[in-house]
Formats: sequence, structure tokens, C-alpha cells
Amino acid sequence: MNIPRTSYPRIVIIGGGFAGVALAKKLSKQEVQVVLLDKNNYHTFQPLLYQVSTGGLEPDSIAYPIRKILKDFPNFYFRLANVEEIDTKKNKIRTNIGNLKFDYLVVASGSKTNYFGNSEIEKHSMAMKTIPQSLNLRSLILENFEDALLTSDLNERNALMNFVIVGGGPTGVELAGALAEIKKGILPKDYPDLDTRLAQINIIQSSDCILKGMSVKASAKAEDFLEKLGVNIWKNVRVTNYDGKTVTTNTDLIFESATVVWAAGVKGATIKGLEAEEFMTRGNRLLVNVFNQLKGFEHIFAIGDIACMVNEEFPNGLPMMAQPAIQQGNQLGDNILKLIEEQPMEPFNYKDKGAMATIGRNKAVVDLKRFKFQGIFAWYVWMFIHLFFLIGFRNRMVVFVNWVYNYVRFDREARLIIRPFKKRFKV
Amino acid sequence: MNIPRTSYPRIVIIGGGFAGVALAKKLSKQEVQVVLLDKNNYHTFQPLLYQVSTGGLEPDSIAYPIRKILKDFPNFYFRLANVEEIDTKKNKIRTNIGNLKFDYLVVASGSKTNYFGNSEIEKHSMAMKTIPQSLNLRSLILENFEDALLTSDLNERNALMNFVIVGGGPTGVELAGALAEIKKGILPKDYPDLDTRLAQINIIQSSDCILKGMSVKASAKAEDFLEKLGVNIWKNVRVTNYDGKTVTTNTDLIFESATVVWAAGVKGATIKGLEAEEFMTRGNRLLVNVFNQLKGFEHIFAIGDIACMVNEEFPNGLPMMAQPAIQQGNQLGDNILKLIEEQPMEPFNYKDKGAMATIGRNKAVVDLKRFKFQGIFAWYVWMFIHLFFLIGFRNRMVVFVNWVYNYVRFDREARLIIRPFKKRFKV
Repeated sequence: MNIPRTSYPRIVIIGGGFAGVALAKKLSKQEVQVVLLDKNNYHTFQPLLYQVSTGGLEPDSIAYPIRKILKDFPNFYFRLANVEEIDTKKNKIRTNIGNLKFDYLVVASGSKTNYFGNSEIEKHSMAMKTIPQSLNLRSLILENFEDALLTSDLNERNALMNFVIVGGGPTGVELAGALAEIKKGILPKDYPDLDTRLAQINIIQSSDCILKGMSVKASAKAEDFLEKLGVNIWKNVRVTNYDGKTVTTNTDLIFESATVVWAAGVKGATIKGLEAEEFMTRGNRLLVNVFNQLKGFEHIFAIGDIACMVNEEFPNGLPMMAQPAIQQGNQLGDNILKLIEEQPMEPFNYKDKGAMATIGRNKAVVDLKRFKFQGIFAWYVWMFIHLFFLIGFRNRMVVFVNWVYNYVRFDREARLIIRPFKKRFKV
Repeated sequence: MNIPRTSYPRIVIIGGGFAGVALAKKLSKQEVQVVLLDKNNYHTFQPLLYQVSTGGLEPDSIAYPIRKILKDFPNFYFRLANVEEIDTKKNKIRTNIGNLKFDYLVVASGSKTNYFGNSEIEKHSMAMKTIPQSLNLRSLILENFEDALLTSDLNERNALMNFVIVGGGPTGVELAGALAEIKKGILPKDYPDLDTRLAQINIIQSSDCILKGMSVKASAKAEDFLEKLGVNIWKNVRVTNYDGKTVTTNTDLIFESATVVWAAGVKGATIKGLEAEEFMTRGNRLLVNVFNQLKGFEHIFAIGDIACMVNEEFPNGLPMMAQPAIQQGNQLGDNILKLIEEQPMEPFNYKDKGAMATIGRNKAVVDLKRFKFQGIFAWYVWMFIHLFFLIGFRNRMVVFVNWVYNYVRFDREARLIIRPFKKRFKV
């Protein structure tokens, strides 16, 4: 892979998400060689993907060139590569651009959408885990409105304007809120000849509450906010299939819909070579010890969504969120240096900073350790925290300008079909 | 096409570029029904496409939803449609979403890249007339740098870092300047293991000066600026072919290059049904009279790039630029209303507001009617004018933030491969 061998130990990091980037930054000024591999040349700020899908933001403001994050560090190498296999015996990885030996390997490959084996749903529904997926969803939503204008078949028009979001976690809730605001603020102006009432937004949640990981109060308030925005919430309903036209469920309920967003679950993005039973857990995550080490290895680690670290509070593993990923990346940076210097490593100790979700204009729910609050102040906190965690001054400025504009004007201007999703719109 | 017939006369406009949008705005508050058709749901500010290609701006800040431009006008209809044929006998057009009758028809379909019949060049080179094309070029440039890192074959690496721009008009000049700044400011930081000297930027111009339409002084100064930035200018050289690897010319010169941008000419984007010999001119433009009427028709017009209006100063037709398009759109708005009211129309009188091109940081050339100037003041004028003509307050703000950032930081942050262009990078 054309990377020079130096006297420094080589640490290979697979994945430039929150975990991988935090780790790489931590190691950047040390006497180690860091090779970061990712399928994309950018880091994605996933919490704001739903705003890309709904025309509120453009992808460049929530993505950041990985090369730029680490540009001033002489021992840092980035390669745009797809890792195909890990050979734990020979300490080697195989990628689409060649092989690479490692001294230390950190798997930070993240997670991907979990369809629980249903290939029909996978084929016909939209996911929102990556920027291209989010742009596809944006195109589809706008294309469906254009198509709704053209048909004189009321059932078809209904289906084109009926949104089904499967999964009532933060992704589903935030997307539903944004769609409700489009329905209210943009649809009547942009499509005066469409009956706005036909636009229905549905969240289907398999359990008895939305935002399951958050407090009861946050969940109840989020539900209240969504209902006020006109979102239909269907609880204790499980989607059984979607054939591109009809969503069937385990109840009598069916939905005719041209836009089904699958936000019902994620699973670890595993890599060939790491399937040993002793560390592969539920949801394809890799079981690690308190040092993020894979069982049986001193020099192979997993961090972030792909890692499953259990403790008393989280017997199924830490939540698959940005905070554990960043904290693990930071901690592992210190630990790898300790390991190299043959000092004892520190066990990872997750500091739960809470969770939050925004539902719409002036509406958010925030659970901090000591305070739980909802409403307009929560919304400001949500915005401030998201701006703060965005990488890059320019990104923060551009997102800020967009948010102020969208707030003042009740608008979302990035409603452009730049890359059509449906065949019919391709020219 | 599902558009109600009212008592108002129906004016169908094909194309939402500068000309079509100017006309639609002019007609929006009048007692006419306006139907605007475009292949995209957005208007593109073409003069800044080269900044999208070079990672300086994101597409949403130079594009604008057409529905939004005209949202408050009750008699305005937009349809996302591809016009396939015009039936001038039956006053009807055929599109991919159905047929439509018109009372007045305005063709504002613009122009497209002219390969002068060379299908090899068309297949292998990149164009920069639309947003998707510009994004493809951005991806290709970045992918080529990534590939250059991987190869140990020096010839191949050379070719991957060798840029050939065919055509020394404003597009070619502005793109070359931006690439030169990437070479200087970004390449050494992002790709410390690539030898920047290998990155060559070439402009190939068939005549003996660049920026042919501008003053001698502007042309000479632009050449001077480009040479100082390290751009190679090859004058009196005509490209004869490009097979994806080698650019051949009518001289001994050949270029091994993986990135050839074809900016050597445009031609009218004609529509089937309008091929009559009496109005089809050189470069597929439609010959119109001083009222923008097509010969033989009172109620069919052409405006903008597709229209060829000749006068003493411009015997080959007005330049294919934004200004004539906007002015014709405005004027035709008034004239159609006069025609409906059976009053005499006013002949079009082109007000030449001059031309300008930017070469890079603090470097631009401006030709106004009375003043011609170059350098840093010209650069400010260029920026001010472009910000002023951008549609939308948010677009202006976002472009402004990006420009300030890029200027202060010597940077271009949108260097993201969001939609890979080469197969190998698709995941």
C-alpha cells in the first residue's frame, strides 16, 4: 500500500467516524505511525443527517475532509480504502488497494442498518446512515411530491404523500419532526395545487414508547410534540414487510406508501476475519474488555459502535452513540501509548453525558445526568451542543447561517434534486 | 399534464435558466398563466460552477429551487419535465410527463457542451455545464490524487496529476486559476507524500489569445496572472483527440492526462420540431428577430443562449452569457403583454455591461464599457457582482461565509468525494 515502514510502531485504524478520528487525533503527535483507512475521504457528523435528507443543510457542512483533520502530523497516513479481510495470525489486512501489515489494529468500522434479514425491506426502503443515503432520501421525497402533482389517481397520490418511518429512536423522531415542518411550511407554498392534508407522517414503533433510551418524561414530551405537529405514532406495531407499495405489520394495520424510511435498528459493520464466536455478540458487535481489547489479543482493539463493552449499567453493551465512541477513542489513544511503553493500561470508564433529540422548531428533549428538560430551552441546548461538536469553524458558521435563516424564514432552501433517485427523473 | 385551462392566455417557458426565470418573474403578476418547464427543480448560477468543481462551494449555494422563486404567484405552474418535441402546427409540446397546449411558447433551453462531433472526446473528457457534471469533476480530481498516491509508476502518477483544460474562455481560465491555488495551498498539506511539482495545469487554446471576447489588456493580464500561478498556456494549438489517456493535438504536442476538461465550446440545446432551415444557425442556435420571434411565427420566441439575435456589433449573434439572457427575458415579458393587448412590441436593444473573469486570489480582470481594470480591485468587483446576482439571501450569506473563510485560511473545504465518479471508489 505504499506506506513507508519507519522505526515507529504502526497503528492501523479502520474507520474515520467519531471513534477513529478521536483516536487518530490523540495519537497524532506521538512517536507512532498512524494509518487511518476509510471508504470515504470525509468524516460524517451523523446526528445531522436527517437535516440533509429534509433540505435543511447541505452535506458539506456536516462532513469534513479526513486529510484536513490530521494535516499537520508527519506520521499520519490516510488511505481511501475498503478493508476486505483481517488476518489476525499474520497481523495483516487486505484492502481493495493492497495489503498492509500492522503492529496494532483498531477496528472502528461503526455500524450499518439492520434489516433483520428481510431483503424485501432492504431493497425497497430508504436508510439514513450515510450522506449518499440521506441525499437519496431527499431526492425521493421531492420526486414524490412532483409525481403526486401528475397523477389523477387519488390512491396513488395518497401513497406518494404518505411517509412511513419505521423506528421511534432519535433518527425516526427527528426525521418525523422535520417532515412535519415541511408539510406545514413548505408544501403549501411550493405545491399550491397539492392538498397538504394528504401528506401523512407515520412513526411505527415496535415497543410501547418512542425514544426508548431516554427518560419517561422525555419520551412522553416528544410524543406530545410530535402529535401537535400532526405526526401519527403507532406503538406496539411491528413492520413485517414492505414490497415497495404496501407496508404490512403484525396487526391489521397496513400503509400504502412510496417513502418508507427504515430507522429500526443498526448492527455492527463487521469485517471478514473477525467472526470468532468468542467475541461476536448480538447485533454483530465485537465483545471487548475494559481496555477495548478483543478476547485473545493484546494488540487488536475495537471502539465505537462496532465494540460491545458491557458493564453493570449496560449489560447489552454501551449505547451505539457518538459519546462512547469519542470517549473510547480518546482513552485508547492513551492506552496504546502505555502498552507500547509497557505500562499498565487504564480501564475505560464511560461518562454518560446524557441524550437529546430535537422534534422541531423550539421543540427538543434533553436528558442530562441531573437535569431533564424539554421545550425551547432544550432546543437551544441541542443546537449549541451540535454546533459545538461539529468539526471545523467553517462548518459551524455555515450550519449557523442556515439555521438562523431556516428559523427566521420558516424555510429549508436546500430542496434540490441534484442527483435524482428515481429513474424517471434522470436526464 | 394536469394544468387547468383558465381564461388567461397560457405562456409556456421551456428552461429555468437566467432567461426563463427573468421572463417568468416579469410575467408573474400579470393576467396570464405561466407554465415553466425544466429538467431540474432548481435554477443554476452557472458562472460559479467552477467553484463547485474545485471544492470552494457546495452546489446548494449556487442553485435555487425554481418553485421558491415564484412561490407567491397564483397563475404560475412549474413542472419537472423533459421537453421532447414541439409541434408548431398544433401549438403543442410533448414531454416525458404528457402533452401541453400553449398560446405562446418561449424556448429558453440554453446551451450544452459542443464536442464538434468528436465522440471520443465526448466520452472521455469532463464537462462543466451542470451541477452534476461539476460534482463529477470534483470527485475525479480528488480520486486522481488518491490514485496518484498508490501507484509506483511515475508516468501514471504524472498523468493522474496532469490537468488539461481545453479552451481558454472564462470557464477554462477560472478553473485553471482555482486548480493552481489547490496545487499551491491544499495539495502539499493534504498529500504530503505527493510531489506537488508533478501537478501540471495546462490550458490549450486554439487561437492566439485567451479570453477572446474581452479586451486585449484583459487577455494579456489574465495570461500574466495565470503564468505567475504556474499554469501552462498553449496557444494556437487545437486538440484533435483524447482517448482517456493521451491528448493529441494538431501539433507535435501530446499530453498524458487523466483529467481533461472540455471547455472549448457550446452549442444551442435544440428541441425536436424546431429544426427548420430558415432559423437554425451555426452552433445550433435559433435565429430570432429583434422581438425574439422565430421566423414565421408571431407567438413562438427564443431567448438566452439558444437564441441567435444578430446586430451590427454582433454579426454572429449576441454572446452566450447571462446578461443578454436576463435582458431578453425581461424585455420579452413586456413584449408578450403588449402582443396580447395588440400593442406594438419594442425591439430588443442589448446593453453591454461588460465582461469579467477571476483568475485567483486578488486577481481578476474586468472590462466595463468605460473602464477596464485588472488586479485586486477587479477581484472585489467580481465578487460583489457575483454575490449580487446570486438568487436568494441565504445563498449570498453562505457563499460569502465560504469566500471569507477560503480567503483567510487559503483553503477550500468542500473537498469531499460524496458521489464517487470512478468505479473503483464506489462502495
